[in-house]
Amino acid sequence: MKTAAVIMAGGKGERFWPRSRQKFPKQFLSLTGDGKSMIRLTAERHLSMMDFEDMFVVTNRDYVPLVREQLPEIPPENILAEPKARNTAPCIGFAAAVIQKKYEDAVMLVLASDHLIKNTTLYLDTLSLAVDVAEDGQNLVTIGITPTYPETGYGYIHFGRDEQSGERRGVYTVKRFVEKPDLETAKEYLNSGEYLWNSGMFVWKASTVLQKFCELMPDTYAGLMNIQKAWGEPSQDTVLERNYAAFKAESVDYGIMERATHIHTIPGNFGWDDVGSWLALAHINRTNELGNVVQGDVITIGTRDSIIEGGKKLIAAVGLTDMIIVDTDDALLVCHRDSAGDIKKVLENLKICNRSELL
Amino acid sequence: MKTAAVIMAGGKGERFWPRSRQKFPKQFLSLTGDGKSMIRLTAERHLSMMDFEDMFVVTNRDYVPLVREQLPEIPPENILAEPKARNTAPCIGFAAAVIQKKYEDAVMLVLASDHLIKNTTLYLDTLSLAVDVAEDGQNLVTIGITPTYPETGYGYIHFGRDEQSGERRGVYTVKRFVEKPDLETAKEYLNSGEYLWNSGMFVWKASTVLQKFCELMPDTYAGLMNIQKAWGEPSQDTVLERNYAAFKAESVDYGIMERATHIHTIPGNFGWDDVGSWLALAHINRTNELGNVVQGDVITIGTRDSIIEGGKKLIAAVGLTDMIIVDTDDALLVCHRDSAGDIKKVLENLKICNRSELL
Repeated sequence: MKTAAVIMAGGKGERFWPRSRQKFPKQFLSLTGDGKSMIRLTAERHLSMMDFEDMFVVTNRDYVPLVREQLPEIPPENILAEPKARNTAPCIGFAAAVIQKKYEDAVMLVLASDHLIKNTTLYLDTLSLAVDVAEDGQNLVTIGITPTYPETGYGYIHFGRDEQSGERRGVYTVKRFVEKPDLETAKEYLNSGEYLWNSGMFVWKASTVLQKFCELMPDTYAGLMNIQKAWGEPSQDTVLERNYAAFKAESVDYGIMERATHIHTIPGNFGWDDVGSWLALAHINRTNELGNVVQGDVITIGTRDSIIEGGKKLIAAVGLTDMIIVDTDDALLVCHRDSAGDIKKVLENLKICNRSELL
Repeated sequence: MKTAAVIMAGGKGERFWPRSRQKFPKQFLSLTGDGKSMIRLTAERHLSMMDFEDMFVVTNRDYVPLVREQLPEIPPENILAEPKARNTAPCIGFAAAVIQKKYEDAVMLVLASDHLIKNTTLYLDTLSLAVDVAEDGQNLVTIGITPTYPETGYGYIHFGRDEQSGERRGVYTVKRFVEKPDLETAKEYLNSGEYLWNSGMFVWKASTVLQKFCELMPDTYAGLMNIQKAWGEPSQDTVLERNYAAFKAESVDYGIMERATHIHTIPGNFGWDDVGSWLALAHINRTNELGNVVQGDVITIGTRDSIIEGGKKLIAAVGLTDMIIVDTDDALLVCHRDSAGDIKKVLENLKICNRSELL
């Protein structure tokens, strides 16, 4: 059976402001120092499994030109522009409906466009196993990540072995999805060995997930079928627009995964990072001997454990510890590491002041 | 007797980098938020005592166009361009020689171009008393500043009353000039009540100070007399060049004041500030309720006790304490307050790397 990748690229990524902007979010930035954007790296990672022709990108209409520019090899009709953001369930359902129409059926790899994976070999082996499990029957597979520390910013998957199902080696049953825990609970999860991080990557057949929509989100399913029927016809855009506007915004985790049966997880251990904030640069890039991650024209004097992203001018960093400095043409961020979560307050301030050109 | 002001404006002011540059040092910057440069404020402060015609500026050749631009009212022949920097003794001697030639004699107010004085009335009263003392005879007067805290960055003046000299009220004898003390010593000076800060402002007759040069720096005196003789003649520039090159670089404190007799001091208490570093902005400008001094397009979130000088772009300061941020077109400084002294290391680095355009 054909395997297709669905790269979800509608996110706004405010936490990388001022480099990320509403018009240029994180997935289109190069953050790894190799000049390639996150979405480009995501697509290229799967080239040993499939051609660009079998990759799909679901994104906001405004980002279609960026996707075309950064991934010109993907056929334009595979770039699926959502008329409105409706969270991940409609997004994935939309892709499944289009894929089913194109291929009759296919295994879908549902992928984030802005995550980083360090070990591609282990990653592809994990996906390959997931594809086998998905092809087998009515299975939904979620890729879990073996936790390495008690992160409180992720959801977790409680997993176990279902002795009756004769599962394959490396494949486990999902007992329960759990929301972001507090630190104490996160520590318990980590120590128990029974929990994985929920990476938000899924593998299933288009037909399987559409069947789940039919059972669990029947209104959305009806809309998806309308879209599927009109896809490729003159009415395509108006039907898409009308049905999308009526979709309830819902995450696939809440709408499908937490309520469905036959949910399996495969623990991945391939150096996954969701690159959730500027702080991530300190673990995805090489730091120098003082713990700094420095890019651009930067002089550091007595400065350590800091992230400095230069723009077009010299930056002199003197006597700094634990700082984030990001210089761009029209905005400069200087932020203490412990306050990285407050960058969104800057954006709120800009919104209130009608300074949308800086958002 | 005529009173003339001599404004010394040869300093490089590296501590205000990146706003100050070798080609645009601190005395030409506006740091007080009123748009007027330090040197312009210095000149205007004396307008109730004299006209611009009686003001002289001694400066580096490169800065002559800046002086003319910022002080167009001062006659061009009163802008004295030193062919080489030779510290303050030759600088003051040069001005004294020119003034003596122009006026036969005059009381000279020797002033820094980059200091700030908050209370002009008290300042002018202090100068007026100093002029009286200088006119009286062979007196050299130095303006001392009543210390308000144990500063270790200034020289001090040990003063007292000479019962035999019948001094005027408010005028004291200098017992000794002392170098920059350590903190312990500075505290002793402060508590003793017998010490003043050495402000580097002097009042004396041109004839008196030239007589001291004759006694204490005879080689320099001979050169000054050569310059004086040629001044206004066709040979002026070549004579100036030749004699200046031979001058020994010497401060007036070391070359004259510490070795001369008849040294008097008048304690000033007029809100003097030498604006020695970016930190000074926090006490010369109004801070907001969080202790920040902010100029330009700046959003602060959870930021206090910081100095932020914006350039042309938005600066977002998030979670900062005790920081100095200065943005200019070609260089950005981000510096912890406690490391302000290390800004010069940035300049050393730029010199080593032959990046003189940024100095």
